[in-house]
Amino acid sequence: MIKVGIIGATGYVGAELVRLLHRRKDIRLTTVVSNSFAGQPFSEIYPAFRGTFDLVCDKLDIPALCEKADYFITALPHGVSTDITRELVQNGKRVIDHSADFRFRDRTRYEKAYKLTHGAPELLEKAVYGLPELYRDKIRNADLIGDPGCYPTCSILAIAPALKNGLVSTDNIIIDATSGVSGAGRKSDLAYSYCETDENFKAYGIISHRHTPEIEQELSFLAGRDVAVSFTPHLAPMKRGMLATIYMNLAKPVSRDHILEAYREFYKDEPFVRILPPGVLPETRFVVGSNRIDISVNLDERLNRLIVLSALDNMGKGSAGQAVQALNLMAGFVETEGLSPVGFFL
Amino acid sequence: MIKVGIIGATGYVGAELVRLLHRRKDIRLTTVVSNSFAGQPFSEIYPAFRGTFDLVCDKLDIPALCEKADYFITALPHGVSTDITRELVQNGKRVIDHSADFRFRDRTRYEKAYKLTHGAPELLEKAVYGLPELYRDKIRNADLIGDPGCYPTCSILAIAPALKNGLVSTDNIIIDATSGVSGAGRKSDLAYSYCETDENFKAYGIISHRHTPEIEQELSFLAGRDVAVSFTPHLAPMKRGMLATIYMNLAKPVSRDHILEAYREFYKDEPFVRILPPGVLPETRFVVGSNRIDISVNLDERLNRLIVLSALDNMGKGSAGQAVQALNLMAGFVETEGLSPVGFFL
Amino acid sequence: MIKVGIIGATGYVGAELVRLLHRRKDIRLTTVVSNSFAGQPFSEIYPAFRGTFDLVCDKLDIPALCEKADYFITALPHGVSTDITRELVQNGKRVIDHSADFRFRDRTRYEKAYKLTHGAPELLEKAVYGLPELYRDKIRNADLIGDPGCYPTCSILAIAPALKNGLVSTDNIIIDATSGVSGAGRKSDLAYSYCETDENFKAYGIISHRHTPEIEQELSFLAGRDVAVSFTPHLAPMKRGMLATIYMNLAKPVSRDHILEAYREFYKDEPFVRILPPGVLPETRFVVGSNRIDISVNLDERLNRLIVLSALDNMGKGSAGQAVQALNLMAGFVETEGLSPVGFFL
Amino acid sequence: MIKVGIIGATGYVGAELVRLLHRRKDIRLTTVVSNSFAGQPFSEIYPAFRGTFDLVCDKLDIPALCEKADYFITALPHGVSTDITRELVQNGKRVIDHSADFRFRDRTRYEKAYKLTHGAPELLEKAVYGLPELYRDKIRNADLIGDPGCYPTCSILAIAPALKNGLVSTDNIIIDATSGVSGAGRKSDLAYSYCETDENFKAYGIISHRHTPEIEQELSFLAGRDVAVSFTPHLAPMKRGMLATIYMNLAKPVSRDHILEAYREFYKDEPFVRILPPGVLPETRFVVGSNRIDISVNLDERLNRLIVLSALDNMGKGSAGQAVQALNLMAGFVETEGLSPVGFFL
Repeated sequence: MIKVGIIGATGYVGAELVRLLHRRKDIRLTTVVSNSFAGQPFSEIYPAFRGTFDLVCDKLDIPALCEKADYFITALPHGVSTDITRELVQNGKRVIDHSADFRFRDRTRYEKAYKLTHGAPELLEKAVYGLPELYRDKIRNADLIGDPGCYPTCSILAIAPALKNGLVSTDNIIIDATSGVSGAGRKSDLAYSYCETDENFKAYGIISHRHTPEIEQELSFLAGRDVAVSFTPHLAPMKRGMLATIYMNLAKPVSRDHILEAYREFYKDEPFVRILPPGVLPETRFVVGSNRIDISVNLDERLNRLIVLSALDNMGKGSAGQAVQALNLMAGFVETEGLSPVGFFL
Repeated sequence: MIKVGIIGATGYVGAELVRLLHRRKDIRLTTVVSNSFAGQPFSEIYPAFRGTFDLVCDKLDIPALCEKADYFITALPHGVSTDITRELVQNGKRVIDHSADFRFRDRTRYEKAYKLTHGAPELLEKAVYGLPELYRDKIRNADLIGDPGCYPTCSILAIAPALKNGLVSTDNIIIDATSGVSGAGRKSDLAYSYCETDENFKAYGIISHRHTPEIEQELSFLAGRDVAVSFTPHLAPMKRGMLATIYMNLAKPVSRDHILEAYREFYKDEPFVRILPPGVLPETRFVVGSNRIDISVNLDERLNRLIVLSALDNMGKGSAGQAVQALNLMAGFVETEGLSPVGFFL
Repeated sequence: MIKVGIIGATGYVGAELVRLLHRRKDIRLTTVVSNSFAGQPFSEIYPAFRGTFDLVCDKLDIPALCEKADYFITALPHGVSTDITRELVQNGKRVIDHSADFRFRDRTRYEKAYKLTHGAPELLEKAVYGLPELYRDKIRNADLIGDPGCYPTCSILAIAPALKNGLVSTDNIIIDATSGVSGAGRKSDLAYSYCETDENFKAYGIISHRHTPEIEQELSFLAGRDVAVSFTPHLAPMKRGMLATIYMNLAKPVSRDHILEAYREFYKDEPFVRILPPGVLPETRFVVGSNRIDISVNLDERLNRLIVLSALDNMGKGSAGQAVQALNLMAGFVETEGLSPVGFFL
Repeated sequence: MIKVGIIGATGYVGAELVRLLHRRKDIRLTTVVSNSFAGQPFSEIYPAFRGTFDLVCDKLDIPALCEKADYFITALPHGVSTDITRELVQNGKRVIDHSADFRFRDRTRYEKAYKLTHGAPELLEKAVYGLPELYRDKIRNADLIGDPGCYPTCSILAIAPALKNGLVSTDNIIIDATSGVSGAGRKSDLAYSYCETDENFKAYGIISHRHTPEIEQELSFLAGRDVAVSFTPHLAPMKRGMLATIYMNLAKPVSRDHILEAYREFYKDEPFVRILPPGVLPETRFVVGSNRIDISVNLDERLNRLIVLSALDNMGKGSAGQAVQALNLMAGFVETEGLSPVGFFL
């Protein structure tokens, strides 16, 4: 039994963490922290939990929190997270941070993308990028995890086998991706109000979205050389779910079966990566509510172009679920514990 | 050619008024007023109008506005509207006010419902309730119109023929109604954000919704005695549209055909009221985008209960469209001018 | 460990049953039956289950099925279910039937509503109406359960305490209810296609919906006299969820606290009934994905009218979840086993 | 006054044609043809039109139809349309055909894509591709128009200025596009049922979608050489609207202003093409219900990549609206007559 606290518990990622953790027998959720709602039961903000999880939200008081738990998951805005995370780590706590603050190994990449001076650069070396499919062993022993962004998870896992195996050119990688609205978080913002969002499809953050350097960091590690990509996020009128359509030019002609085999091999022991059979395409509804990522490998033989599609739940494998997966690894639990392979399906 | 100004033009009702009026040949939209967006082109707030209607929003300066137009439609919150409307009327302008401020003939009914002291009670006598089906002739000559609320329009028109003809008891009238989200207006409010609204159905304002006394005022006039109703509004995950399901006990047993005939007779010359054939039920999608109200008359012979269903577009016949209908009457235009009998349909 | 089969497993109720049961340690799902998809893996029809539950669908062959399981849940159309259920029961199987075929104690009520001659009237006496809150003890020992309809569950549980305690008149009970689209089942039907359903709100089955006699049967038992109600179902553009708004006239004036106390007392030991605090209204999103029903008690003192709102997931407490609750009781398991008190919440 | 008939009037494109044409003073809609609904009033299938357009659907009887109108717009499946169109043309009628049958100048391109032998190859030379922005003068005098597909319109108009001006390489053009569900037509198909479509995002027709060769035909004409593209359509949970995100590599480095100027110049007299200001991205809701296409030009200077986004209403500029635009040209009317520059906006 470990004791876990969630900081930023009343945002959507925080609440999904509560959903995933509150019934665990091996975990005790000892504090849910929210400055906005301190003193209010969590179940007043999320009435679905009324009668089941009525813990009162704590205010952010790190010494007091340190008494309550040994593991923390933070779901806070970037920049805000830095000092809090550092203080927790200094107090010997193991932290999974869902902001961007500890996802980068190179502070300049972070500072350029987020237009900030990094507040705790000394921790970057210590921090592990929390993608178990690439860094499982490091995660086990880490004290500080940078929980990956949703778009990076969806993109990197879809590209990794092709890039690692040298199947594709590092030029002309194009990632066209779409997210549900929960990715924008829980907030009063006209742009995400029902009437402005429903029955609408749009792109946003084109060319300069902050997930681009995060994606490029990991792709560059995989390729062993600098990789630059076009990444365009879109917003679809749905609550959860994310799909990426990724275009890569083949390095040299190979068969689809060859590529498919490389993907299967790469993920052969992964509990949450599902390589779809040829001809089957992912849909967000097949993964929403689960911790899965579905990947489909398609070859355009006419153009020697590989088109990989991947889908996940931005609240699951794209954020909260992935954090729990890392937590399981850190705590020595079965990695899949409490993470459903089957989501809402309807 | 008349000159018309819209005050509160950047809310949804205001913008629908722009949509309905900006292409009229007999009307010139000379000013769109919005304190929040003064100095900005209307088409920056509503990009659908870019290149078509790019008028810059004016700030609320009544003397300046009085130079610009002779007719004004205000789409402002209740309470806020009172002084502005009075000043316009005092300057000889003809005003259609979409707030609740001039819908009541009895100030105490208003003051109780809105928990305000009425700021211009002397105008209540002058003001006409802007429902053409009941007050057409008065509207023609009025200088001040209280544009009816959406729920009242949907309810009153569905009940009027039964009540006026003494077909139903005045006890036990129950109005159960549902609106799309645009009824809540254009605002940054977490409760109306996409993720809190989508895939959800709920009631709100139960027992005490402010449209209840407005409905009761008109039903009491029709019945010639005090009528009290239960009215429960609900919110459905859609942008536009409103449907009311209304339960009334028969005063004495009569046939459905008899009732149907009473409804047809009552509305026989009405351009925007459509009495549906027996067995056909209204759906909001059949009226959204139009100025129609669809009404279906159903008799439960087992229980001697009349169940009337009515549907309209809360942005059309429920607000902006109805205001334009009144404007047409006031200005001596053909009543249906610029008001589509067919909406979006898909 | 019991062995369970689902007949009609590829409809939405069937698939929700699979979702609820496939990970149970105390239950083995030994057969999923679907004539339409016999020979195909269940996970091809519902790809969310791919890699997790890939059992191949069996065709409907009762002798063969009887070898496979001791408990069956059927999710078939009414009429179709009768013979299958009888044969299973005759073979000593315990059956939870989700059609309407075994919900009625009086065959004429069924036959009038469903316009059918009942094919197994001898079983009606044996069958228990599967609402644990009213018939828990009988369910434990039953061999045949008529799993209640979604609207009846949502209505009966909201009315029972008031009626049983004589708080309300049996006249003028009006049930106005709204369902998500999954209630119509999984089928190729233009009326439920996306473009005909999205952004639309409508009533259907007005006056004559088949759930009316089912509701009236149970309300009459509770009241100890014949009760007739108006019941109007509506369809909202959402997948799951159901909300009922119920109007009842008080038998004599009592306080809201008195009524609230009666509701709390009635359900004091119920694991899935949540009486909301005064002033809190249910929303479907707070119960979707769970087996909860939320009930809110409201008193209109002006009209001496009780307005009760209730919400549940039509796929949960309204069908599949309730069937599992009954199964737990029949099999001697903890009643709440495998039934989440917290649903999707987002 | 011209007389116009619509063949295939009860599909969504057909019904949108009715919406656009039924109130025209210069056009008389003399026949709406639907074999499925022959003998039924159009307004029974589309109740939004009840009382406004109640014409009874005709069955497909070409001699009889030829008596009724001089212009026909057909909205039929490919293959089905060929013979009907030929017969109409042989009878001296001017036809706008919305199937794919007359969009190709080279029958082999068509036959390969649609896996059919073309039934009227002699008409291909005569037929004009109905994109006014490219073929306005030819459309005026044509007797047979192949009304372009929605994806091709959205793609070609977004690419044309760049390609025609040699600004981009013809390699590595990638079109990633998303459509609302109405693009799939009005049909009973489980895949487009509400519960299978709502809250879901997916790709379809990957690599082999039939609009690819149509796009490539026109891009090749513009470039003066063979152009091959990757085109991936996606489906978003909304009724109308289409957005394309298009990636092209610059032929040589140029400034964004230079490219923007080329786009503005190319479309300087176009009534329905709106080049958005720098930094403004299109959203489908800004064009739905209108005949507009919004285009945004974005330059990724880091990667020398041009990213153009375009949005239109698949039922407007993507099909029915474009057909009416062509009809206006053919009949010598003002090109914009009856085509709204402003759509539903909310």
